[in-house]
Amino acid sequence: MLSRGGLRVVVDAPWFNKVITAVILVNAVTLGAETSPELLASYGDALHVVDRLALAAFVVELLLRFGAYGKSFFRDPWNWFDTVVVVITLLPAATGAFSVLRALRVLRVLRLVSVVPSMRRVVSALLTALPGMASITALLALVLYVSAVIATKLFGTVAPEYFGDLGDSLFTLFQVMTGEAWSEVARQVMEEKPFAWIFFVGYLVVTSFTVLNLFIAVAVTAMQSQMTEEHAEHDREEMAATMEILAEVRRLRADVEALRGKAQV
Amino acid sequence: MLSRGGLRVVVDAPWFNKVITAVILVNAVTLGAETSPELLASYGDALHVVDRLALAAFVVELLLRFGAYGKSFFRDPWNWFDTVVVVITLLPAATGAFSVLRALRVLRVLRLVSVVPSMRRVVSALLTALPGMASITALLALVLYVSAVIATKLFGTVAPEYFGDLGDSLFTLFQVMTGEAWSEVARQVMEEKPFAWIFFVGYLVVTSFTVLNLFIAVAVTAMQSQMTEEHAEHDREEMAATMEILAEVRRLRADVEALRGKAQV
Amino acid sequence: MLSRGGLRVVVDAPWFNKVITAVILVNAVTLGAETSPELLASYGDALHVVDRLALAAFVVELLLRFGAYGKSFFRDPWNWFDTVVVVITLLPAATGAFSVLRALRVLRVLRLVSVVPSMRRVVSALLTALPGMASITALLALVLYVSAVIATKLFGTVAPEYFGDLGDSLFTLFQVMTGEAWSEVARQVMEEKPFAWIFFVGYLVVTSFTVLNLFIAVAVTAMQSQMTEEHAEHDREEMAATMEILAEVRRLRADVEALRGKAQV
Amino acid sequence: MLSRGGLRVVVDAPWFNKVITAVILVNAVTLGAETSPELLASYGDALHVVDRLALAAFVVELLLRFGAYGKSFFRDPWNWFDTVVVVITLLPAATGAFSVLRALRVLRVLRLVSVVPSMRRVVSALLTALPGMASITALLALVLYVSAVIATKLFGTVAPEYFGDLGDSLFTLFQVMTGEAWSEVARQVMEEKPFAWIFFVGYLVVTSFTVLNLFIAVAVTAMQSQMTEEHAEHDREEMAATMEILAEVRRLRADVEALRGKAQV
Repeated sequence: MLSRGGLRVVVDAPWFNKVITAVILVNAVTLGAETSPELLASYGDALHVVDRLALAAFVVELLLRFGAYGKSFFRDPWNWFDTVVVVITLLPAATGAFSVLRALRVLRVLRLVSVVPSMRRVVSALLTALPGMASITALLALVLYVSAVIATKLFGTVAPEYFGDLGDSLFTLFQVMTGEAWSEVARQVMEEKPFAWIFFVGYLVVTSFTVLNLFIAVAVTAMQSQMTEEHAEHDREEMAATMEILAEVRRLRADVEALRGKAQV
Repeated sequence: MLSRGGLRVVVDAPWFNKVITAVILVNAVTLGAETSPELLASYGDALHVVDRLALAAFVVELLLRFGAYGKSFFRDPWNWFDTVVVVITLLPAATGAFSVLRALRVLRVLRLVSVVPSMRRVVSALLTALPGMASITALLALVLYVSAVIATKLFGTVAPEYFGDLGDSLFTLFQVMTGEAWSEVARQVMEEKPFAWIFFVGYLVVTSFTVLNLFIAVAVTAMQSQMTEEHAEHDREEMAATMEILAEVRRLRADVEALRGKAQV
Repeated sequence: MLSRGGLRVVVDAPWFNKVITAVILVNAVTLGAETSPELLASYGDALHVVDRLALAAFVVELLLRFGAYGKSFFRDPWNWFDTVVVVITLLPAATGAFSVLRALRVLRVLRLVSVVPSMRRVVSALLTALPGMASITALLALVLYVSAVIATKLFGTVAPEYFGDLGDSLFTLFQVMTGEAWSEVARQVMEEKPFAWIFFVGYLVVTSFTVLNLFIAVAVTAMQSQMTEEHAEHDREEMAATMEILAEVRRLRADVEALRGKAQV
Repeated sequence: MLSRGGLRVVVDAPWFNKVITAVILVNAVTLGAETSPELLASYGDALHVVDRLALAAFVVELLLRFGAYGKSFFRDPWNWFDTVVVVITLLPAATGAFSVLRALRVLRVLRLVSVVPSMRRVVSALLTALPGMASITALLALVLYVSAVIATKLFGTVAPEYFGDLGDSLFTLFQVMTGEAWSEVARQVMEEKPFAWIFFVGYLVVTSFTVLNLFIAVAVTAMQSQMTEEHAEHDREEMAATMEILAEVRRLRADVEALRGKAQV
């Protein structure tokens, strides 16, 4: 049997990553093919065999990587991601139940993100934008909730399919926030409540402005992190040059002082 | 009874803020629950009791904070916000009237913004963008008004549900500005007035361009305020170093002048 | 009669501008009121009188300003704007014809832009963005034209209400470019031409990307012009300080050279 | 016959470019006119003659330019573009077949991009943004594919016109990503599967956020390339001035050292 060090050599080898990537891609194709009743009828057995083999490959891969790294395996959040995805997709195979869980098997394909370095970097970059969005997202949720309660009370009986209960209102107001078919909703309500335009226009203006600022917050963070990197380097060079001049001038002054001392003597 | 100083210790204590936050959250849940007829039927009395207690808590809180700060209470605009929100939500309880005012009771939940520091900061930041938007918003309103008068005169008889009177036209053109179902409106008008596309395309191009510039104005302000802060610090350091060099060189020159004076003698 | 200089004192006086602004605002209200049949029936004569008086005020104002400035009146593009707007709105009064021209009378209200300094600045700023947009707008027009010819040929018989002739196609593809109800158009065409999704998705991706870059071009121009101003000032200061140091060091070296020459002697 | 050098003088002459531009514009008009059955009935022969002449002109132009530059002709990607466009539009003329290929003849008009320098620059600028978009576009495609497989499995039987097979789902989810009529799709599915809102809201939030970051990536690249150019120039000047000071100070110190040496003697 392989030692931990030997396992690491294996799981960190480029070919190991390539094999896993290939398995994911093949599995992506078979999972897509399974959505077609015709393909399922003709090649159903083959597709299932490939799917089981892919799942087995993922389980073996995770065990190998866990074997290679032990507890430190769980320090990398990407390993958590891989483990959760594989466990989710193991459930239906184990229980044979729940169409939703069966449908979620395709989440395995998202493992492409963790095995392809460039996509990993992109997702990491996207995630760094999240903390800066927390407060403004909370504000948006608060506006959505308050507006939904108001809309349910005011328009619940006028347009029950849109504002029948708090859940309906939340969905409808999320829809209005995306600008989708909001005039249809508003015009229907306004037939009975002519002043409802105040609510809809106000809601649209406030949420658009807030969403715009959410976008700007993300954009500013992204630009800053990229621009300041460049600037920082230049600034360092500039500062180093300036500091060298200062040192030279001071040494020079010391020389002149010395010269003056002598001249005085 | 507590002195003003003692009251300040109370209202500025972290636990006081936490208690109010908790009351707001509980009240948010009960106000949401009141929108459901089933919950209202089963737990209506309990919900109303909680609502009255929350309102009482808000009134006591405001009185305590007013007692603690006196006139300076009204110098902080957030205190105005809190007071207005509580007064608005007191009205229906006092008068028992107006379904709209009853619905607005949920505005109390917006007090979360004034009690949670991070949301307070976000809203303050959003508000600072407003002055820079004033001129361009006025321009947009002017374009909207002029276009609505034209549309009412030209299309009022063709599509009365969209352009029947000035109010309808303003609403419809606001809708067109958001890009929502504008083709539906335009196609209906164009059936009778084939050249109406000139109006709609022109209006869309002008308002989109203006709205875009409104967004850019907000974005530029946001970026500047954040970037210049960083730059400013670096620039200060850089300038300080440069100025120190200048001072050193001048002192040096004075030394050399002195030396030269001696050499001359 | 007033001399040219006397006229200038009048037309450049703040109260003159304020009077004209007031006339525009009053006229804006009466023009809006004229869209309402009820108001027109009750106060029609009064509204028309106010309208005539406002128009007369504008004509007198332009004549005074022309009298005050002579030929140099036409050097300011805003004066052209004012003259064109007044002439357009004189036409229907003179000829009593054309409902479109009568509707355009409200364009007079746009004169607010030329008389309110802050709106004048905003519009000037918007206009400076236009030259930078020329090439990319031409590209967009080219893509629109080529796509419309293709769509008319391929889908003209399938969906004649959308792609019946080149004009229809241009309008429909402008609509698709704004993302409005494009799926409705595409799904109808795809019922007969299943591969039409290639055209629609391709067109949407290309035009969205181009429009995005149009927006970015405008945004970059806006940011640059504002940021470089700030930078420029700092850079000037920094450069001035650096240059002063250089001059000081050179003068110092000349001193030392002189000292050395003496020492050598 | 003309030598290679003589040909180059011809094909690089401004008038040659102007003639080709004129031919493209005339051809654009005739290709547009061909979409009108009336114009085709009246002037069909003339339009076809002009079209053949334009095509002949393009073929002759390409041959001349190939003759003038030989193999290096194919080093410029714009020449590839021109050749491909002309070949595509030669096909239907040669075979007389395929309505799609006939419709694509209008792609010739895109040659305006390669002959007008300012549009060439714009397109080149747009293309430089593409490499930076690769990873994030791949991520978006991955999310689209995974979501389409899930949607087909979960909603395929509920809303077969939207999610009937993998192709339908991909198209529908692309539509949802653009925000077009997504509420219509979602509401239809939610009638049978009330929890489908989790899928739609989640999908919209994830793809909007990713698309936003795609836009930001393009914007940052565009801004950087333009801003750093300006900065770079200033930085170079600043650095040059700093370096000159350093050199001066060092020379000065050498002088002082020399002076000191003498003084010591």
